[in-house]
Amino acid sequence: MGSAVLSEMATEIIIPLCAVIGIAFSLVQWYLVSRVRLTPEIHGSSGAKNGFNDSLIEEEEGLNDQTVVTKCADIQNAISEGATSFLFTEYKYVGIFMVAFAILIFVFLGSVEGFSTKSRPCTYDAQKVCKPALATAIFSTISFLLGAVTSVVSGFLGMKIATYANARTTLEARKGVGKAFITAFRSGAVMGFLLAANGLLVLYIAINVFKLYYGDDWEGLFESITGYGLGGSSMALFGRVGGGIYTKAADVGADLVGKVERNIPEDDPRNPAVIADNVGDNVGDIAGMGSDLFGSYAESSCAALVVASISSFGVNHEFSGMLYPLLVSSVGILVCLITTLFATDFFEIKAVKEIEPALKKQLIISTILMTVGIAIITWLSVSPSFTIYSFGTQKVVKNWQLFLCVAVGLWAGLIIGFVTEYYTSNAYSPVQDVADSCRTGAATNVIFGLALGYKSVIIPIFAIAVSIYVSFSFAAMYGIAVAALGMLSTIATGLAIDAYGPISDNAGGIAEMAGMSHRIRERTDALDAAGNTTAAIGKGFAIGSAALVSLALFGAFVSRAGISTVDVLSPKVFIGLIVGAMLPYWFSAMTMKSVGSAALKMVEEVRRQFNTIPGLMEGHAKPDYATCVKISTDASIKEMIPPGALVMLTPLIVGIFFGIETLSGVLAGSLVSGVQIAISASNTGGAWDNAKKYIEAGASEHARTLGPKGSDPHKAAVIGDTIGDPLKDTSGPSLNILIKLMAVESLVFAPFFATHGGLLFKI
Amino acid sequence: MGSAVLSEMATEIIIPLCAVIGIAFSLVQWYLVSRVRLTPEIHGSSGAKNGFNDSLIEEEEGLNDQTVVTKCADIQNAISEGATSFLFTEYKYVGIFMVAFAILIFVFLGSVEGFSTKSRPCTYDAQKVCKPALATAIFSTISFLLGAVTSVVSGFLGMKIATYANARTTLEARKGVGKAFITAFRSGAVMGFLLAANGLLVLYIAINVFKLYYGDDWEGLFESITGYGLGGSSMALFGRVGGGIYTKAADVGADLVGKVERNIPEDDPRNPAVIADNVGDNVGDIAGMGSDLFGSYAESSCAALVVASISSFGVNHEFSGMLYPLLVSSVGILVCLITTLFATDFFEIKAVKEIEPALKKQLIISTILMTVGIAIITWLSVSPSFTIYSFGTQKVVKNWQLFLCVAVGLWAGLIIGFVTEYYTSNAYSPVQDVADSCRTGAATNVIFGLALGYKSVIIPIFAIAVSIYVSFSFAAMYGIAVAALGMLSTIATGLAIDAYGPISDNAGGIAEMAGMSHRIRERTDALDAAGNTTAAIGKGFAIGSAALVSLALFGAFVSRAGISTVDVLSPKVFIGLIVGAMLPYWFSAMTMKSVGSAALKMVEEVRRQFNTIPGLMEGHAKPDYATCVKISTDASIKEMIPPGALVMLTPLIVGIFFGIETLSGVLAGSLVSGVQIAISASNTGGAWDNAKKYIEAGASEHARTLGPKGSDPHKAAVIGDTIGDPLKDTSGPSLNILIKLMAVESLVFAPFFATHGGLLFKI
Repeated sequence: MGSAVLSEMATEIIIPLCAVIGIAFSLVQWYLVSRVRLTPEIHGSSGAKNGFNDSLIEEEEGLNDQTVVTKCADIQNAISEGATSFLFTEYKYVGIFMVAFAILIFVFLGSVEGFSTKSRPCTYDAQKVCKPALATAIFSTISFLLGAVTSVVSGFLGMKIATYANARTTLEARKGVGKAFITAFRSGAVMGFLLAANGLLVLYIAINVFKLYYGDDWEGLFESITGYGLGGSSMALFGRVGGGIYTKAADVGADLVGKVERNIPEDDPRNPAVIADNVGDNVGDIAGMGSDLFGSYAESSCAALVVASISSFGVNHEFSGMLYPLLVSSVGILVCLITTLFATDFFEIKAVKEIEPALKKQLIISTILMTVGIAIITWLSVSPSFTIYSFGTQKVVKNWQLFLCVAVGLWAGLIIGFVTEYYTSNAYSPVQDVADSCRTGAATNVIFGLALGYKSVIIPIFAIAVSIYVSFSFAAMYGIAVAALGMLSTIATGLAIDAYGPISDNAGGIAEMAGMSHRIRERTDALDAAGNTTAAIGKGFAIGSAALVSLALFGAFVSRAGISTVDVLSPKVFIGLIVGAMLPYWFSAMTMKSVGSAALKMVEEVRRQFNTIPGLMEGHAKPDYATCVKISTDASIKEMIPPGALVMLTPLIVGIFFGIETLSGVLAGSLVSGVQIAISASNTGGAWDNAKKYIEAGASEHARTLGPKGSDPHKAAVIGDTIGDPLKDTSGPSLNILIKLMAVESLVFAPFFATHGGLLFKI
Repeated sequence: MGSAVLSEMATEIIIPLCAVIGIAFSLVQWYLVSRVRLTPEIHGSSGAKNGFNDSLIEEEEGLNDQTVVTKCADIQNAISEGATSFLFTEYKYVGIFMVAFAILIFVFLGSVEGFSTKSRPCTYDAQKVCKPALATAIFSTISFLLGAVTSVVSGFLGMKIATYANARTTLEARKGVGKAFITAFRSGAVMGFLLAANGLLVLYIAINVFKLYYGDDWEGLFESITGYGLGGSSMALFGRVGGGIYTKAADVGADLVGKVERNIPEDDPRNPAVIADNVGDNVGDIAGMGSDLFGSYAESSCAALVVASISSFGVNHEFSGMLYPLLVSSVGILVCLITTLFATDFFEIKAVKEIEPALKKQLIISTILMTVGIAIITWLSVSPSFTIYSFGTQKVVKNWQLFLCVAVGLWAGLIIGFVTEYYTSNAYSPVQDVADSCRTGAATNVIFGLALGYKSVIIPIFAIAVSIYVSFSFAAMYGIAVAALGMLSTIATGLAIDAYGPISDNAGGIAEMAGMSHRIRERTDALDAAGNTTAAIGKGFAIGSAALVSLALFGAFVSRAGISTVDVLSPKVFIGLIVGAMLPYWFSAMTMKSVGSAALKMVEEVRRQFNTIPGLMEGHAKPDYATCVKISTDASIKEMIPPGALVMLTPLIVGIFFGIETLSGVLAGSLVSGVQIAISASNTGGAWDNAKKYIEAGASEHARTLGPKGSDPHKAAVIGDTIGDPLKDTSGPSLNILIKLMAVESLVFAPFFATHGGLLFKI
């Protein structure tokens, strides 16, 4: 077997060090963004034409004076306050949920051995003595709370920096597109690094603290740690589903009254829902996406750890091998740090058309560097050969095989990213064909868009299948878990690119509302268009990793529940499979309806304000933004209950009444079916959005024959875009949560289901 | 174990007798329809005002004279010729395909034992001597051809009677809605009974003829018979996919130019594509649906027989038990015969609002009678207890358990039918809500429609899951197969109801084209509206039975390939599962694109005719209908190649290169994922269609606030309807073929894959 090069001491130093470096780096980025000053010193002293910096300024046809800056600051304030108010309202419910669920975890897991405080023989090695099930209950509850709090804090900080950066991006756009890009990108990086580093650090500390109690019982230790994944993922339910409903309710509500009924442009400050719409970008795409990816990260780490704990790493107490998943993430932080410098320092963007390639380069650079990084850390931390627990048997794995597992996940992520780009960017033929189909009306646009989404599933699924086959063959479920980690290892860069989108979107909105010149609006629009594609890529990553993570969790669940086969030919499993495959449809129906109902409430309020506030349409009176924000907040929280309940209750009901076999079927079914709908829904939506933008921008001969704004094809494209909104921002991405959360919940409750479950079949 | 009440001799009499009764009954119905005379004797002799019958006539405000009848006859001729020409063109390709595939079957199956003519020990009982693999190859090829020819003949006859009845229904509509209903329904019954009885009779004869060679080797005999299912199902590929593309290409093409560009009403005789559109109803909904259900029927019978042959029925040579699946179908024919009389003779329809209840009553009556019928035949033909082969073990089954298996399938079908009706009929709130959402435009209509389709999946899937669980638990894969047969046992009634729809649709088209009074058009519209809902119900049945059939075939495949578990935890199976779940999306993308391309060709031709034929718009010149029919025919045949290749090649490629384990995964994955899309697509489409009809009819206060025709909500509803066309008539129902055909193909080639497959993993 041999032993690892990296000593236990070195491991204990590397992980926290990388995490601290990540946090420090994000603080530096934050500082750099904060140098763009938004308010003070403007009145008086400095005297520089633009109020804060004496660098070159190209713009301002008489529009530019202090009032613009003040306006920007005001709008930013309103957005920031709206987002904060949403998050705090959400946290009230999150708090109640956390307490209730923590109690549930404690009671269910504690009851496995009747709350006995006596030690018991270990499950996988009856010779040894392990800590009592009650300890697992207590520590699972604690790690659940830790995961939840980490997720909440990361999401909150991400939202804070995003709402801090949006107006600054707008102001920088006056100096050129390059400056604005760097500001938006740096802010995204703050979010990305904070989340990756925090997640790693808290997990690392938790493991070390829990070890003080567990000592040599690594099996119990890492079983308890799975609560961390559940905590992270259940917050993602609130972030993704609640945030997704919020953002689209506000967006659709604002559009239906503003654009359709009142015929005023998007982001017009007279529209009472305009602030809510901009808040939505932050709570949905920033906080929601952040909590989703954090959940995936926490879950894949936990899945890998729990499998490793009953493998030779755990059995022989090889600490550096045991913490391999954390080491991969640590290296990821360093790699992303270098990658970020390519965007912000090594090169400078000078023209609009350089934006998208620069973002794409981020993906390629980080993937290449990370491949090297994985090779090095695998060689250092893992012994040349070790054994992995594989459903009752032990499987020998070489360290180069482990490297391939992680690498295949990493590269599958890149492939998924590129395929997503191909199907959603209007630089390629699929979106152009969809735009072209608008000639014959909205119906053909919708048919072609749906077909595009269906088609876009093919290559990502093959990429996922190959990674599953390779990693599964080499290292069973441990392989899957580290493949997921591989895909997520460049999470800091992924999130930076992703958060960049809504920040640019907001920046454009602020420019419009502050009444800045159309040249600035053009620049922010260019930033935003690139952001649309990267948002689709980010969603592709999120779904791809969710698929791998769910499979890893599924494997860990199966191991923990003591099942060695999940046989499709057993009726209990098969009915689980077919019902599981149905759940994504049920869930999507719910989330789509939720957006509809919430948007309707928004429509009523906006109409009411236009009808009752005198002078609003003329621009004399200010609308009541806060009420709209409140309506979106309340409606989204209320509307997320049914889909949330479906996700949270399904594993409990199936586990308790039908038992672990049917539950295995449900998890496998919802996984294989949910991935497809998630990918197709978000790509269809992205394609419609960009088909509309393609016609609006009129950048090619072909595009101009379809335009301009207001032409029949453009109207058809707008219909497609509106349909795509809930698909790509609510129901599609929410499916990640469905498949992951059901899997991790099953994993945590596995011992309970295994002992007390399957009531219905027992009768 | 005991023995059955029914003797072998009685079984040998009952089955062919029932089949002959079915055929005779359908001929009687045909005769009754033919009494409505279409042409002769009109000029001169009889002197009766309407030209042929002296019964009461209510109509004709000066419109009614001999020319109307002649016109009807002319139009009917054109439709009939168009349909025949399509089918004959299709048969040319079908012929080539059949020969090629027959050779493939022979070579692949013959090669299993190197074309040896020596007998070999039986697979399941090594003590006995079985016929050589070469015999299986030869007889499988023969039964494949038999199945294909039976399907083709049934589809052709169905189409003939439908195109024979459409104009007769129009003429009868002049005497009242009841007479028209009976004519349309009787014609549907011809189709239903011919198909059910032919399918049964040919299968029965084949078994008895093959037995002359096979003698006591029932295992080999019934393995060879599986070719019958493959033959039936591969013709369904042409019928459903080719027919589905034809019908929607013509429909969408006619609408896009006629309604949108030229602003002429539907079914206007000036539209060159109008005949092609009416032909489409016949080739898609009649021949296509017929071949689909015939395929299901043949496959579920074969799946049941192949499992029974290696169970106690086969081992102990209990002939009446062995032929239990055929006995169930025989009883079904008698039950449907009685049921039909309820619609045509026992009661008479007097008002429009009685149509839908009358059709629904057909379902209920046939289900109740059939439950009794199954109980009796099970008691008569099956010994009180017998054993069934279940993946390597034998399982004891009581006869009452077998009864429950069949009954649960039968009743699940009824539940699926009613749920489908609830979600697609505009008498209930789901469709009304979709109609209401048209207020805020096409986008909300589409969002609500998609959500409705997703939601409509829930209960059918639970119904299918319960039937699977019950029948699987009682009698393993044999239970599933007979449950599918149970659902299909009332196929004659199901098809009668289903075929009734397009006949009424055609009748309306003919009334319009012949320039008959609007009161007649109103009556045919009422018939057609009820037909829309029953069409959706028929699709629900087709999908539900396809799911059960595929599962049964899957089970038979697994048995024949010698696998005893299909473990999701094996990477080979899991990648199959996830790729299989992706196939329905790939397939749907293809079929939707096919409709788009074919429709585009139609649009060009229709535009060309309007532009080049002088006096066409004014009604002075006749359009060139035949060219449009030819374009639709050629385009649909050409466009069905890619999706057809996907279906036919997937099992071959996966089986040969990846082996039987991965193929099992692919079959299970495509089954559980395909069912969901199929149900949601066809219900979404049906709901949009009826939401539009709801607004047009304006039958309630609520509906009137949305209308009239041409209002903004109505325009939004029309967009939804157009999107729904390919979903409900092409891509949705075609998925049945995908899941069934892949399964039966795998079953037939199972021995080949088991011996020579999995090349890639062998390297």
